[in-house]
Amino acid sequence: MKIIILKDYLNESIQQVYKAISSRTTIPILSGIKLDVNHQGVTLTASDTDISIQSFIPVEDDKHTIVQIEETGSVVLPAKFFVEIIKKLPSQEIKMEVKEQFHTYISSGATEIQMVGLDPEEFPILPAIEGNETVSVPGDLLKNMIKQTGFSISTHETTPILTGVLWNLENNELKFTATDRHRLATRSAYLNATDIKFNNVVIAGKTLNELSKIIPDQNTLVDIVVSDNQVLFKIDHVLFYSRILEGIYPDTSRIIPSTYKTELIVETKKLSESIDRAYLLSREEKTNIVRLQTLEEGGIEISSSSTELGKVREELDLIDFKGEPLRISFNSKYMLDVLKIVESEQLMIAFTGIMSPIVLKPMDDSQSLFVILPYRTNN
Amino acid sequence: MKIIILKDYLNESIQQVYKAISSRTTIPILSGIKLDVNHQGVTLTASDTDISIQSFIPVEDDKHTIVQIEETGSVVLPAKFFVEIIKKLPSQEIKMEVKEQFHTYISSGATEIQMVGLDPEEFPILPAIEGNETVSVPGDLLKNMIKQTGFSISTHETTPILTGVLWNLENNELKFTATDRHRLATRSAYLNATDIKFNNVVIAGKTLNELSKIIPDQNTLVDIVVSDNQVLFKIDHVLFYSRILEGIYPDTSRIIPSTYKTELIVETKKLSESIDRAYLLSREEKTNIVRLQTLEEGGIEISSSSTELGKVREELDLIDFKGEPLRISFNSKYMLDVLKIVESEQLMIAFTGIMSPIVLKPMDDSQSLFVILPYRTNN
Repeated sequence: MKIIILKDYLNESIQQVYKAISSRTTIPILSGIKLDVNHQGVTLTASDTDISIQSFIPVEDDKHTIVQIEETGSVVLPAKFFVEIIKKLPSQEIKMEVKEQFHTYISSGATEIQMVGLDPEEFPILPAIEGNETVSVPGDLLKNMIKQTGFSISTHETTPILTGVLWNLENNELKFTATDRHRLATRSAYLNATDIKFNNVVIAGKTLNELSKIIPDQNTLVDIVVSDNQVLFKIDHVLFYSRILEGIYPDTSRIIPSTYKTELIVETKKLSESIDRAYLLSREEKTNIVRLQTLEEGGIEISSSSTELGKVREELDLIDFKGEPLRISFNSKYMLDVLKIVESEQLMIAFTGIMSPIVLKPMDDSQSLFVILPYRTNN
Repeated sequence: MKIIILKDYLNESIQQVYKAISSRTTIPILSGIKLDVNHQGVTLTASDTDISIQSFIPVEDDKHTIVQIEETGSVVLPAKFFVEIIKKLPSQEIKMEVKEQFHTYISSGATEIQMVGLDPEEFPILPAIEGNETVSVPGDLLKNMIKQTGFSISTHETTPILTGVLWNLENNELKFTATDRHRLATRSAYLNATDIKFNNVVIAGKTLNELSKIIPDQNTLVDIVVSDNQVLFKIDHVLFYSRILEGIYPDTSRIIPSTYKTELIVETKKLSESIDRAYLLSREEKTNIVRLQTLEEGGIEISSSSTELGKVREELDLIDFKGEPLRISFNSKYMLDVLKIVESEQLMIAFTGIMSPIVLKPMDDSQSLFVILPYRTNN
């Protein structure tokens, strides 16, 4: 392998695949990035077995020659050193040559680097699922769906299936669900006509987080291919492979109440600021308990208290109120997590009793729904 | 105590004094901020016994009435909760009233807070050193002197005196010195004529760090009063008290060589980038060892190596070279720490031998000098 490559392009691809490198890997070859050079260009691959990312740098684009290829070939280079040193090389032009025993010589300006490379034959082979049927989702929609559900996953490894987000696709409706048993978030979106359907596709929350970072902000279509135990996301020149979590995701439909006894409509921002103040105090008690109570004279009261520090109490106007008066306690951190990602100016909060799940629904977006279980305090 | 006060002014003062609050304090009263209200205004005080900060909010400034005082008095409020909740109150107008047992009622807009206050009589009294003679130093100069020396203090509590920066003032020259026995930084500045002199005033590095944050960026004079065991800094409405570290600071004059065998002049930025690349590799070996060597054909070579990862080697042009050829190893992290804070475009590096201290001197600034001890490797 012997090439001359432009720094900015190489750097961008390294940054993309580097997201798959785990600092805790015990398999030496997986702490490296694989480079494969053929006459079309350079392919970079990194993997931590849960996630594998591949980025392709073509020989040229509309504007430039990006890679000059003198000799094709492959090598695996130590990822952490490679990612940092390439970024800091003095010149745009980077020469790379692999010699005996995968020793790799990199030069740029007056800088010369010898890197100890590894045998690319030892690198795991990525699953061949490219042939399967493809669903296309706009990148910004996908990022939004991840953001609106990912915060509700469980962080406990005792129930591994709940550390993922459940994806279902049926009748053109793609639906994401996440729950940690104390709260739940769902978000749906209608896709362009597709015959494809799948269910019980569960993808780890941290994987989706990394995927989000790779999807560019401008309009991009993400092509999704689902196989038995892997999902492949295609984004421009990047292929992102994720393992599907094993196990059956629990049925969450019973958690969501279908009828309500009390319904409030509030200004999202005002409620958020109010809960935030009460949270500051509740946090010191380690419980995060905040109380919400309807007032006879209209409006609601938000309050919290701490034996050591004091009390916070405030009143908030309602845009609308239907149903019975109510007094309920909940984990204010969970409520704030929802309020932070709601984009709608108004929010419906619905209750079926002080022991029943609290439902939050953004008013101009019928496609998200959040549930928080109340605290069983004696108020 | 009963007042109405403007949020932004109260918030600014809280932020200033909060820097003295230690999260690890075991003395309950020191986890609080003391408020003293008299007819001139409100004084906030916080202390961790090493540092005490006092900020004064006058009743009015050129533009506004800032505080309306209905009743004078004092109280100590829980700092962490106070600092966070005041920032988040909904309205500029904040009402505060202290009632029985120091229970404090704070209201703003529709928010009502009850805070458990403590007895201000329990709060430590600040040392009375305001009467002593004063030295004035421009704030930006003081910040710069702290920045150019503070990074060289020791972080080991086994030699407490070296965790501070030594201040000497004699013949109008203020000089800062810091060393951790492996490196040394000094910075001097001439002040306007003053009769005052002092020596062996050693102030903890972390204290100077907090002081730096309080000094505003615009032109401000900092008035400094030194007593036997305390230094007071006066900055606008803020008084910053610091303990002087106990003990005698070691004589560092012998560390700095007075004659050189080899002198190089380099471009600071180029050297910095070059050492940074070599550092990336040396860091993986945990040693940070980088080698510098003069080349027969002119210029120098910067290199480092790692058995696991490989080698970095590069050549750098010199602006000037005097004396004998040389090959020397040093801790590249220490060198980078210096290169990061040098503002001069050119830098002199001087050597007296491979076992002797390396001297770094910015070319357009005769008032800073840095020393790094070399590594005793067999190259």
